[in-house]
Amino acid sequence: MIFNEVVEKAVLETPGAVAALIMGSDGISLANYTSEEAQLEMEVVGVEYASLLSEVKRVSEILESGDVQEVTVSTDNYIVVIRNINAEYFLALAIKPGGNIGKGRFMLRVTSPEIRKEL
Amino acid sequence: MIFNEVVEKAVLETPGAVAALIMGSDGISLANYTSEEAQLEMEVVGVEYASLLSEVKRVSEILESGDVQEVTVSTDNYIVVIRNINAEYFLALAIKPGGNIGKGRFMLRVTSPEIRKEL
Repeated sequence: MIFNEVVEKAVLETPGAVAALIMGSDGISLANYTSEEAQLEMEVVGVEYASLLSEVKRVSEILESGDVQEVTVSTDNYIVVIRNINAEYFLALAIKPGGNIGKGRFMLRVTSPEIRKEL
Repeated sequence: MIFNEVVEKAVLETPGAVAALIMGSDGISLANYTSEEAQLEMEVVGVEYASLLSEVKRVSEILESGDVQEVTVSTDNYIVVIRNINAEYFLALAIKPGGNIGKGRFMLRVTSPEIRKEL
């Protein structure tokens, strides 16, 4: 199943990445891959970020700044990169501090059109 | 005044940057610099992002992921990088698509301790 492959590949090919998922804006996940070293429940992270992404979209509409493409949140314990796939789905990748955020963003950018085709 | 200098410098030294501000979490700005080519009202952007940042902090608390350091939002029309200075203030930089986000993040990271000292 392409969805599972995509999330696994995003984690394995991004140095420092620990988990990835494809989730609907309703907080229901389509695919999820979490490495053994992950200290987080990616489904729970996804649900919270789904609501955050709705808020970001609302702000972007108010500011007339167009569609939201990507959101990156860096905290003490990890970095989460979120890529909008379409109006309904997003892709999220959790990376440990010091990991390669640039590679993570790249992985999400190149894989999101692949996912979009399958949805 | 150091605050005005910092926001001006962040814009002028980041290729593609159009505006920057230092704002309190209450949406009241301390310093603001907007280049002539900016198509946005940075104060309005800041107010919306202040509320978004509160939401990000709430999510980070729920997920026990520590303090929020940085948030980057990429939309069709521009990219906004937000750096937390302390619990009360943040620094935001708006960059046109194709601008140097990495340099913008660097500028905010190196200048936020300077601002923190003055607050």
